[in-house]
Amino acid sequence: MHAKLDRCCQLVDTCFDAVLSPMGQSPVELGMRYAVSGGKRLRAFLVLESAALYDINPLQSVWSATAIEAMHAYSLVHDDLPCMDDDDLRRGQPTVHKKWDEATAVLVGDALQTLSFELLARSETSESSDVRLNLIAAMARAAGAQGMVLGQAQDIAAETTKTPLDLFAITELQANKTGALIEWAAIAGPMLVGADQTPLARYAQAIGLAFQIQDDILDVIGDTDKTGKAVGKDQDAGKATFVSLLGLEGAQKRASALVDDACAALSPFGARAETLQDIARFVISRET
Amino acid sequence: MHAKLDRCCQLVDTCFDAVLSPMGQSPVELGMRYAVSGGKRLRAFLVLESAALYDINPLQSVWSATAIEAMHAYSLVHDDLPCMDDDDLRRGQPTVHKKWDEATAVLVGDALQTLSFELLARSETSESSDVRLNLIAAMARAAGAQGMVLGQAQDIAAETTKTPLDLFAITELQANKTGALIEWAAIAGPMLVGADQTPLARYAQAIGLAFQIQDDILDVIGDTDKTGKAVGKDQDAGKATFVSLLGLEGAQKRASALVDDACAALSPFGARAETLQDIARFVISRET
Repeated sequence: MHAKLDRCCQLVDTCFDAVLSPMGQSPVELGMRYAVSGGKRLRAFLVLESAALYDINPLQSVWSATAIEAMHAYSLVHDDLPCMDDDDLRRGQPTVHKKWDEATAVLVGDALQTLSFELLARSETSESSDVRLNLIAAMARAAGAQGMVLGQAQDIAAETTKTPLDLFAITELQANKTGALIEWAAIAGPMLVGADQTPLARYAQAIGLAFQIQDDILDVIGDTDKTGKAVGKDQDAGKATFVSLLGLEGAQKRASALVDDACAALSPFGARAETLQDIARFVISRET
Repeated sequence: MHAKLDRCCQLVDTCFDAVLSPMGQSPVELGMRYAVSGGKRLRAFLVLESAALYDINPLQSVWSATAIEAMHAYSLVHDDLPCMDDDDLRRGQPTVHKKWDEATAVLVGDALQTLSFELLARSETSESSDVRLNLIAAMARAAGAQGMVLGQAQDIAAETTKTPLDLFAITELQANKTGALIEWAAIAGPMLVGADQTPLARYAQAIGLAFQIQDDILDVIGDTDKTGKAVGKDQDAGKATFVSLLGLEGAQKRASALVDDACAALSPFGARAETLQDIARFVISRET
């Protein structure tokens, strides 16, 4: 899996270079390159592997993979703002508003969201126009006020009102905040060929939730040197998390069960889905 | 012209209602409705009238018109943020971050940008998929780091470094900051039918610049009660504007000459472009 992931990172970086290097050296343009560098590229890898199930060449699916990484990067830049989560570190580096300033961070995020849609609308890709429009419409649903932005708003509301969320509410919040983009990535393959999205949607819902549970676990037992961001933050803030609701062991068991669910959802694909199964296991074994 | 503009406002409001009213009552959702209400709908009107030149029914072109208004509304919400232009009033009402808070304003803007692309990707419209993809790609170019965001970044850079801009630099800045979306709106008609965009692009470049010159004039001679926003702000900040560079009378003459250019660009369309000519004249006669 790791050799494939490295190859994915190279492909995505090449795409970002192709679109960002012709730009200038203004803070916004530098900030865009900075914000999309590094990162696990988990969402891009899901796109490439879900596309590979349908025999789509990575050189074709990498544009969609880069689009989801641009959307994800925008969300991180805005989430880190002082008026939102107020984080100084991301991937072990200063966040965009710390390295430049808040106005630059707002604009960098704005431009990265635009770039995501631009990448999906590019004519270089060989999909039909109908397929590309479907990808764009699905991306807009996943990212907008009924998806990622809704989740972020729910998160802020819970923090502002100091309302402790129960397991149902926190699951729904996370399905919106991080789950929607992960699901888009995992169903990109069937979307690209017009196939049934059900198995990969089920897979994505399970790993999306497992991913967030692991984030909460790392907030408790993680290491800032490895995670590249502040740890213990949610715990210190008295925020309800999967760990506070289920206990550390309970959270680990739940994440593990979700990974089993995710792998089971892939059974129609047999051995062809081996890497997607590896990704599911990676989601809960990662230390960053 | 005013009856047609009223009809345009009604159509756009109906579209916004159709997409926003099924949403909930969270601050972000309320903020989205708030941010898209009111406004001159100049960009929407340009879309409808440019489409009408090619016999496109307003019920078809209104989706593109609503998309450009969503994009414009997002840009205003983010521009008004304390870290950007720091404005308390917009259209005579408190700005989104004053009525709610900064986090809500960031998310409202983010979600409105997403909505703009969602509206263009909607399958309700009867254009071909190729046409809709062209609209999306052109919107991304107009809004992104080579268009509107670039202009906003240039504006902030000029303010931060206190570099007085010359006429060339301020013209380029405005062509990016406000011109790019106005041009998208004006060429929506030919884009919708695959016709030559040259005459309407020339028209748009002229009225876009005239629009900004009039904004600068209103900043000097306008009335807060009518403009619905603080006046004298640029002047007080010692910012280079078309008025500071050309003088009041010089700016008025330049705007008037640009309106003549805009009308001349419409000559291939004869009397059919009468409303677009009216819009050009309205741009420099408006008091808000």
